[in-house]
Amino acid sequence: MAKFITIGERIHVISPAIRKAMAERDPAPILKRAKEQLDAGADYLDLNIGPAEADGEELMPWAVQLLQKEFDNVPIALDTANQKAIVAGISVYNRAKGKPIVNSADAGDRITNIDLAADNDAIVLALCSAAGVPGDNDERMNYCQQLLERGMEMGMESEDMWFDPLFLVINGMQDKAMDILEFIHMLSDMGLNSTGGLSNVSNGMPKDVRPIMDSAMIAMSMQAGLTSAILNPCDRRMMETIKSCDVIKNNILYFDSYLDM
Amino acid sequence: MAKFITIGERIHVISPAIRKAMAERDPAPILKRAKEQLDAGADYLDLNIGPAEADGEELMPWAVQLLQKEFDNVPIALDTANQKAIVAGISVYNRAKGKPIVNSADAGDRITNIDLAADNDAIVLALCSAAGVPGDNDERMNYCQQLLERGMEMGMESEDMWFDPLFLVINGMQDKAMDILEFIHMLSDMGLNSTGGLSNVSNGMPKDVRPIMDSAMIAMSMQAGLTSAILNPCDRRMMETIKSCDVIKNNILYFDSYLDM
Repeated sequence: MAKFITIGERIHVISPAIRKAMAERDPAPILKRAKEQLDAGADYLDLNIGPAEADGEELMPWAVQLLQKEFDNVPIALDTANQKAIVAGISVYNRAKGKPIVNSADAGDRITNIDLAADNDAIVLALCSAAGVPGDNDERMNYCQQLLERGMEMGMESEDMWFDPLFLVINGMQDKAMDILEFIHMLSDMGLNSTGGLSNVSNGMPKDVRPIMDSAMIAMSMQAGLTSAILNPCDRRMMETIKSCDVIKNNILYFDSYLDM
Repeated sequence: MAKFITIGERIHVISPAIRKAMAERDPAPILKRAKEQLDAGADYLDLNIGPAEADGEELMPWAVQLLQKEFDNVPIALDTANQKAIVAGISVYNRAKGKPIVNSADAGDRITNIDLAADNDAIVLALCSAAGVPGDNDERMNYCQQLLERGMEMGMESEDMWFDPLFLVINGMQDKAMDILEFIHMLSDMGLNSTGGLSNVSNGMPKDVRPIMDSAMIAMSMQAGLTSAILNPCDRRMMETIKSCDVIKNNILYFDSYLDM
């Protein structure tokens, strides 16, 4: 099987430093965050510019070109609710290292992001939800089927649809955690790719506990069949765990210094 | 589901200090190893006295009583090829904290350890092998069935048979690792308990890599359904991972200081 794909989550408008840099078109803080994540082993960079209603169509292509010029056409997940901004970003995107990812579609109002991905030969992150958290795996699978059908109608390859079960916070929804893992297993049995925002799992836990919990969850998720995740690649424990699980799954060949790669 | 059960592996005659202490009936080194493991969170202690052909019938009950008196009737896995030593150990064993474990039966020459466990109302570790490493999961399942049938004939409860898939060394047999996880999944689907010598996985790897690899493997194994393991409880990373997986599986309730329990 293919190596697990990590999508670095740290270029995000919610960070004050990144918000300011995006507003002022100041490359340095964005490039710094990008380099940290790439040095730590991120495969893709998520580029979250927020709703970006006013200037998304200028901001997204600016940031895409900034990152791809500095980092050898690094592949990027274009993350915004502004569809025109995504289209503008893809129009300048270089595919040498991988297709752009549209982040994200769902089975509700955002289902048209499937169409957008199909029209632009992009990968799409497809949230198995419409509004709110699905009550159970039947509901998740129902949304998954709707998303899959839409993609097939639009001529997408199923491998370009990465289904997101929506990881739930343990501290508050502990009894639902195994549902998510079971759902990943179902996606895997169907031969579908999957992804998700992993750090939600440990939300609200003490700072020293979070990397430990996230690392346990990523290993269990990889055993269940998860093929990628949106995460903080600067969390060393998690990246060590992902590489080790990739060795166990025979996705990468073992050698004594595999953790340094 | 029940909390994962850890069996501490560090009271083992292969250790020179333990070998000497056993030969001289010197309590201190044995009690020290026991305390370290219990402080680290071990549920059971494995007590490996080797073949013990000459004095096993005296040594095993001496060591069982030594440990149970000092540590509030700690439950023990009696680990030797000498059946009379196991029977002698069980004859003095206090069951207040759990049944004794017979370590171990297999589907070959050691199948009579199933009978021994049945006759003594003990748990038995049942290796899904006869001689050497099984070639595939069909062979493992065949051995599992033979062991299970023997136990049923002898009147055992299936929950007292803990099936061991025999974890394989990654460095050399990397392409077989997922077979083991799949087999654990099969045991779990059958409602059977399982166990195994986890540290074999990282045999031959650099010392700093081993806890990382072992921790990834235990998390994947717990997702596959493993219910216990024989391991080094003083490996902090692995114990943190086990507790976190137990939280994810809803086997223990989350609270902020769950790692300290």
